[in-house]
Amino acid sequence: MTRMLQSYVQGAWWSPAEGVTGTEVRDASTGEVVATVSSEGLDLGAAMDYARTVGQRSLGALTFHQRAVLLKQLAQALMERKEELYELSYRTGATKGDSWVDIEGGIGVLFTYSGKGRRELPNSKVQLDGPLEVLAKDGTFLGRHIRTTLPGVAVQINAFNFPVWGSLEKLAPAFLAGMPSIIKPATPGAYLAEHMVRIMVESGLLPEGSVQLVSGSIRDVFDHAKLGDIVSFTGSASTAESLRRHEAVQTGGVLFNAETDSINASVLGPDAVAGTPEFDAYVRQLVTEMTTKAGQKCTAIRRAIVPAAVADDLVEAVRARIEEKIVVGDPREEGVTMGALASTEQRDEVLRQVERLAADGGEIVLGAGQSADGDGASETGAFLQPILLRFADANAERVHDTEAFGPVSSVIAYETPEQAAELVIRGGGSLVTSVASADPSFVSDLTLRAASANGRILVLNRENARSSTGHGSPLPMLVHGGPGRAGGGEELGGVRSVFHYMQRTAIQGTPEMLTAITGVWHTGAPTRDDVHPFQKSLQELRIGDRVVSEEREVTLDDISHFAEFTGDTFYAHTNEEAAAANPFFPGRVAHGYLLLSFAAGLFVWPDVGPVLANYGLENLRFVTPVSPGDRVRVALTAKQIIPRETDEYGEVHWDAVLTNQNGDTVATYDVLTLVSKAPVVA
Amino acid sequence: MTRMLQSYVQGAWWSPAEGVTGTEVRDASTGEVVATVSSEGLDLGAAMDYARTVGQRSLGALTFHQRAVLLKQLAQALMERKEELYELSYRTGATKGDSWVDIEGGIGVLFTYSGKGRRELPNSKVQLDGPLEVLAKDGTFLGRHIRTTLPGVAVQINAFNFPVWGSLEKLAPAFLAGMPSIIKPATPGAYLAEHMVRIMVESGLLPEGSVQLVSGSIRDVFDHAKLGDIVSFTGSASTAESLRRHEAVQTGGVLFNAETDSINASVLGPDAVAGTPEFDAYVRQLVTEMTTKAGQKCTAIRRAIVPAAVADDLVEAVRARIEEKIVVGDPREEGVTMGALASTEQRDEVLRQVERLAADGGEIVLGAGQSADGDGASETGAFLQPILLRFADANAERVHDTEAFGPVSSVIAYETPEQAAELVIRGGGSLVTSVASADPSFVSDLTLRAASANGRILVLNRENARSSTGHGSPLPMLVHGGPGRAGGGEELGGVRSVFHYMQRTAIQGTPEMLTAITGVWHTGAPTRDDVHPFQKSLQELRIGDRVVSEEREVTLDDISHFAEFTGDTFYAHTNEEAAAANPFFPGRVAHGYLLLSFAAGLFVWPDVGPVLANYGLENLRFVTPVSPGDRVRVALTAKQIIPRETDEYGEVHWDAVLTNQNGDTVATYDVLTLVSKAPVVA
Repeated sequence: MTRMLQSYVQGAWWSPAEGVTGTEVRDASTGEVVATVSSEGLDLGAAMDYARTVGQRSLGALTFHQRAVLLKQLAQALMERKEELYELSYRTGATKGDSWVDIEGGIGVLFTYSGKGRRELPNSKVQLDGPLEVLAKDGTFLGRHIRTTLPGVAVQINAFNFPVWGSLEKLAPAFLAGMPSIIKPATPGAYLAEHMVRIMVESGLLPEGSVQLVSGSIRDVFDHAKLGDIVSFTGSASTAESLRRHEAVQTGGVLFNAETDSINASVLGPDAVAGTPEFDAYVRQLVTEMTTKAGQKCTAIRRAIVPAAVADDLVEAVRARIEEKIVVGDPREEGVTMGALASTEQRDEVLRQVERLAADGGEIVLGAGQSADGDGASETGAFLQPILLRFADANAERVHDTEAFGPVSSVIAYETPEQAAELVIRGGGSLVTSVASADPSFVSDLTLRAASANGRILVLNRENARSSTGHGSPLPMLVHGGPGRAGGGEELGGVRSVFHYMQRTAIQGTPEMLTAITGVWHTGAPTRDDVHPFQKSLQELRIGDRVVSEEREVTLDDISHFAEFTGDTFYAHTNEEAAAANPFFPGRVAHGYLLLSFAAGLFVWPDVGPVLANYGLENLRFVTPVSPGDRVRVALTAKQIIPRETDEYGEVHWDAVLTNQNGDTVATYDVLTLVSKAPVVA
Repeated sequence: MTRMLQSYVQGAWWSPAEGVTGTEVRDASTGEVVATVSSEGLDLGAAMDYARTVGQRSLGALTFHQRAVLLKQLAQALMERKEELYELSYRTGATKGDSWVDIEGGIGVLFTYSGKGRRELPNSKVQLDGPLEVLAKDGTFLGRHIRTTLPGVAVQINAFNFPVWGSLEKLAPAFLAGMPSIIKPATPGAYLAEHMVRIMVESGLLPEGSVQLVSGSIRDVFDHAKLGDIVSFTGSASTAESLRRHEAVQTGGVLFNAETDSINASVLGPDAVAGTPEFDAYVRQLVTEMTTKAGQKCTAIRRAIVPAAVADDLVEAVRARIEEKIVVGDPREEGVTMGALASTEQRDEVLRQVERLAADGGEIVLGAGQSADGDGASETGAFLQPILLRFADANAERVHDTEAFGPVSSVIAYETPEQAAELVIRGGGSLVTSVASADPSFVSDLTLRAASANGRILVLNRENARSSTGHGSPLPMLVHGGPGRAGGGEELGGVRSVFHYMQRTAIQGTPEMLTAITGVWHTGAPTRDDVHPFQKSLQELRIGDRVVSEEREVTLDDISHFAEFTGDTFYAHTNEEAAAANPFFPGRVAHGYLLLSFAAGLFVWPDVGPVLANYGLENLRFVTPVSPGDRVRVALTAKQIIPRETDEYGEVHWDAVLTNQNGDTVATYDVLTLVSKAPVVA
């Protein structure tokens, strides 16, 4: 009997009752039934409530960094058992290369978000957004923006083409933001997603309620969704539209983030004629995008927009490369370089769209066969040879709005650079456009004209032809999503996508209150001047701990000596008359670097102690010049404390304010140090 | 005959044909007809096309800073003629104080955005978002995010309560982003918005097509809207919902940003019992919010959430203050402190909502009269005394979802801090919540629990009772908008709201291509080493201009001397044994500040020239320690050039890289300088 896939809800594996038949999922190449899928009888509302209560509580107990460490450990757990995933992946029609994109690409997203989370987010639960706003001159009323985790559940509806990557690229940012996820894979390939979740569950790493899986339909998701929830969807534009119309989204405040397949373009520059490295790179990329995952990628190139003069050369070069490199068949067969589509239904749908394109003026110049090249390929497999169409009329309608979600691209010729940009925009909003050219002026012009219609633009030329990750590869650190037809959402983009799972709120209040809310010391909040804060380990140090130095006079000799010693003889420090003629200086003034150095001499605690190193400086501004005879003093206050989860030390950011004998601010900056968690004695 | 208001479309004033009657707009206090309004016969589609072509072209020719300067000049033009606006404003029922909020508050938004635009955006047309992403180890493939202006028109549908502020708070960010606006005022008060636009048009400052005005209905706006357009709406939640459902938004990619009135809360802390400064500040703020603009503010306090033990005291204190301070009547009358509602229809609607609240358990403890206090108040005026309700049951439904858009608030008692937060959240998403308390722990807890349900949270206590701008005042530098019932949008928030009129796009390519697209030099892009770049004025300097210094040895004597001279005797610089025990240092190493100082000595051009001052430093990181005997050299490259529109100089950011004799990076940072536009010679 065929295995019925399980769901993982409310902390346990769940199966439909006996007698439920479910939907059959077939091997894309052989047509054999791999599994059946059904969520009949599953209480989705209870699963969502479990996420909102148990999941929110367990993830909410962790900081950004703690969640980031878990992401890395989950990635490692998946890597250890990746071969099991590769084995299952063949059944989806994927070649080994396709599976690498799905499996190791997906695991890579977890690694990247783990790193991003620890480098770009604080080790706390609140994210600070943007600069301080001083709302009252006396400093008693400040404004600050924070982001906090949305209180609901993140429901993730994935597409069929990348069962692993598609799940993990949504899970990673939600998890890092502290939102519990419910993963809902597409039915084809659901067995692969199920196994991936099984590995994660068996790793024992998942906080309770942080990840659930529904194998089968979640058609009623919006009936259970409410304010604070977010539904992320990847798939067809039409499904996205129908989901978006639900009452819960329209009036209930449920967030909806969509990434839909789009009619992506790849532009060949006027300089990139046949024989140039850019032409060759363009052809290689186009064939890769047509054939990887049998062209079933939201980001694949659907429109090849090329100079009219090279269109013939381009078609021939693509034909030659496909004939040379592409062997269609069961990916388990030796020598096969392009696998099957997800299902025979999917293949038939692609052919219908090709017919639609052909009916609107697209001449099929390559392909149109359905059969596999490989010897053992079964007639029941969902095979399709790559198809290239050519449009004589660049303004045909269908080529700009019809997606054949398979190994299909159309060649469109342009006459002028302006027209190339207009044709790109005709796609109505895309995930990605690429441009192959060695001409910075053409590239810059096209990019700036077309950027607002794209989520991503890739520029290919001879220098990065080998290092480029390619038109069709969304990267976790870059925005993935796009305007208009591409869904209007953002799925990836480093911390940008984490923020889609959080609410931004402006906070107004006194420095003390902002400090209490944010965990970051704000100027004017209480301070503590007891032992020198450099003597305190991370365990002992508190924000607001401060040292106010003695005063030091800056003499003319100091300035002259510093100029001579360092070689910095800039006239403002060495020539009274010339300095006085400068609009910003009263006469000779101290070097900024001299002031920084004296400040360090004033605030430092010289002995061995928990402060290990000064690794940098931020936001330095010189405000008031220092003339010979002025006296300076520095106040250094612990502003932000960021213990590292996996090191014996952490980062401390110190607020440094240098003032003169009149109390005027001379300079402000943040000193960045590494401080030991435990006390250190010599 | 009553004057028919005009529209301003396609560069000219437009009136409906003779015979069109239009909608009458009445003086809120006297009931006299002030004007009639109609857009019958107006070609809205043509106006929108005019914006997309002429408006986009004229605004697109300007940089962010040039647009910012125009915003300031427009603000000045409005300030010069503000008395004309004040005069008209009385007819809306507004007191002088209400009008100040509307008129000078609105003009203030322009000033703030002018300043923000010049301080926080580059003097170019492309905004860079977030850090560089290195996508290939060899540096030939980089990622960067940019924002570019949406290519369409920004249609701005405003509420009736603040005809000037409501228009300008939407116009300012759109204008700064480079998007042409069509202002559509609400019919009540449309004469005030018309006059404001007239002043702007007559100033001669508006770039062609950048601002249009439609007096009257724009019911068909979505029939003309398309991808690249954005419609911003302020008003009722129900209208927002019906607009959002349009095909153009659902499937056409038209952006829709809504800010709707919400059931805002104000929480009194458990510490803030009667007699405390926080209690008094809370009462003053509550009465202000009930009576300013006769309570017709999206941000007004609808729910006063107070400790059960002080609810009686609170009601009495509010009653006493209203009796003492509030005189309702025609705002032109002497002594009147609260004006009329926008119309008698509006007043009747408010009373209907009060009945709804009363029917759900709200006891009316104050008000309920409709008449004015003022002697000369006409019976035809839309007057209403402030109304306070009290709910015995905090869990009543209506008090959390019903808005009486007038001088109406409800008192709700809470028992525990957790319950206070839950009650705030029951509002289903609010623009603002305030909390009055002197207890940082209560404040922090409530804020973090309730933040995700709010666009803004204001903390009031004794220290900022006088400096606070108040619960009900959106500020241009802070987010205005909120989740759920508040519409889910962001109208203000400094540059954050500018970005809602722009598209974010990831760009991938070589350093040279990223440099060409962004106008900012990227490491690895071409450089030019001819004359020392400090000898070049802003006109002559180009990004990529560079100086590579000689090498300088850092001796043990240098380090010892620097320690002694500056007083920075940190053990890593002075004690070989202790330094070697530090996890980051091989032994004694040079001070970071010594390296910075030597670097300046190496790169500086000492003579009088166009470089006027080094005003700061950013992103300094010390990467490799420098031991005695190591030799360092610095490369300084012009990275970003930001001429100032209104000064004779501009800012230049230099990329500084300090390396050692092995080519290892020692430190990286950005040097910020002011450079003269014209050549400077001694």
